[in-house]
Amino acid sequence: MTEIHIRERATLIFRKMQEQLCTAVEQLEPTARFREDRWDRETAAGTQGGGGISRVLEGGQIFEKAGMNFSAVHGKLIPEMSKILVGIETELPFYASGASLVFHPLSPHVPAVHANIRYIEAGQKAWVGGGTDLTPSYLVEDDCVHFHQTLKACCDRFSKDYYARFKKWCDQYFYLPHRGETRGIGGIFFDYLGREDADNLISYLDFVAAIPETFENAYFPIVRRRMELPFTKEQKHFQAIRRSRYAEFNLLYDRGTHFGFKTKGRTESILMSMPPLASWVYDYQAPPESAEERMIQVLKAPREWVAE
Amino acid sequence: MTEIHIRERATLIFRKMQEQLCTAVEQLEPTARFREDRWDRETAAGTQGGGGISRVLEGGQIFEKAGMNFSAVHGKLIPEMSKILVGIETELPFYASGASLVFHPLSPHVPAVHANIRYIEAGQKAWVGGGTDLTPSYLVEDDCVHFHQTLKACCDRFSKDYYARFKKWCDQYFYLPHRGETRGIGGIFFDYLGREDADNLISYLDFVAAIPETFENAYFPIVRRRMELPFTKEQKHFQAIRRSRYAEFNLLYDRGTHFGFKTKGRTESILMSMPPLASWVYDYQAPPESAEERMIQVLKAPREWVAE
Repeated sequence: MTEIHIRERATLIFRKMQEQLCTAVEQLEPTARFREDRWDRETAAGTQGGGGISRVLEGGQIFEKAGMNFSAVHGKLIPEMSKILVGIETELPFYASGASLVFHPLSPHVPAVHANIRYIEAGQKAWVGGGTDLTPSYLVEDDCVHFHQTLKACCDRFSKDYYARFKKWCDQYFYLPHRGETRGIGGIFFDYLGREDADNLISYLDFVAAIPETFENAYFPIVRRRMELPFTKEQKHFQAIRRSRYAEFNLLYDRGTHFGFKTKGRTESILMSMPPLASWVYDYQAPPESAEERMIQVLKAPREWVAE
Repeated sequence: MTEIHIRERATLIFRKMQEQLCTAVEQLEPTARFREDRWDRETAAGTQGGGGISRVLEGGQIFEKAGMNFSAVHGKLIPEMSKILVGIETELPFYASGASLVFHPLSPHVPAVHANIRYIEAGQKAWVGGGTDLTPSYLVEDDCVHFHQTLKACCDRFSKDYYARFKKWCDQYFYLPHRGETRGIGGIFFDYLGREDADNLISYLDFVAAIPETFENAYFPIVRRRMELPFTKEQKHFQAIRRSRYAEFNLLYDRGTHFGFKTKGRTESILMSMPPLASWVYDYQAPPESAEERMIQVLKAPREWVAE
């Protein structure tokens, strides 16, 4: 398979993911629908091009805000980005395609979720990355187990060491050092697969191609189980506090956000992941032995959710 | 004046600013009061020390959240910070003291405001910095003129070129490139005064000492003029959208936030500036010729508020 064919295959996987998961969301929503924005990247002397399709649903009955991006862009990387990605501090041609979603449910009993898969070429190197992770406001252990078990079953089909590696990587990546907390209860995260072992790129792409369906099976059963539970104003307020940590992670640490800005991506698409409403309360302390405290304890000490 | 004396004088100025402005806020609030947290910096082998006093008022009738920090910390800078501050990439001893405030009023008709003054030593260099800037949700030109005129009158007492220089610096510093917008309608910003001309450090410190009273005269008359105006739910929502830009600036670009994290400052004190409630709406567009649009237009094209 040539690089052009890999690009095409990857791009198709990403577009299909967008279609499939927007449909899954709309099937749950009685009336709210995604709006769609197609955008082109500014072109300068023919070296910067591509674009994307952003879909956002706001004010739904289940999802307060759901964003689902697809993009395929190319051009020249600034030396700073080349250095980070492949260790060479010079302008390099790049191609980047991917799909990413962030869903912020209305109910604090339904976890927020993020998933992303991507294919990147920079200079002579090419690789895939991605993952998915769950961010509940309230801990339901069965949900965490179901989410992780579904991911593990998918990982195991490809390699017996994937789940353990990518679960750990996820806990490390979605970490807020200034809070001493992970963003959520984790999932899987992987990056640079194929960059140093180009022969394996195709099989890594097969793994990436399995993520959308795995995500659907991992997440939507949780939504259906929790979406009709009543919630209080206080629980909604706690959700807004938790979302402020989500906002902090995305703006302070997320590589996708920074990559987007540095490659002059579309601001509204990059920040589509931001929560519809977030609250910063000074020195918030959960009441002792409350559900809020149990949630935070897990973020401070990530657990193993699936037995080996 | 020796360096130790300068430190002491600077530190007194900052502590006094905290007292004075917390009192000014509490005089407006019928019942809400500041809580106070005194904190120590972790010490390791005696090289990292100091601490601070954080004061925060939440849920006031005028101020939804008002934070006022004082700190005086010292230790060793990591090489990365030394490089940024004085161009030498090595561990350097540092001393940093300052006061900073961010007020988020309840009413969208009362502008949010930020002020900061600081004194820093890194290796052989010492300097002062600071400033204040106003962030309304709704534009009232008279308020902007009053704020800037008050700052200019103070600047002019010290040097006829300060206001023009520091006003421009403020517009450049409080800028969100991904939005093409300034954070608010500006004010003054200055940094590194004395770093390259140590002989002038004392006179720069005199200027810094004049900031607290200037701030009080620049800001509180605006609060008193606007605080009793009725507001709608829609105006409150627009305020939450504007506050999301405030949050973006503070987490993505603010040097104070990054300096705080890199020197392992106290998280709750550093993030005290974050808005009590912020909303990210996808691709928000103000209605044509609305008050919301008039506000945003000024952020996209900063104005001169005072004639020369």
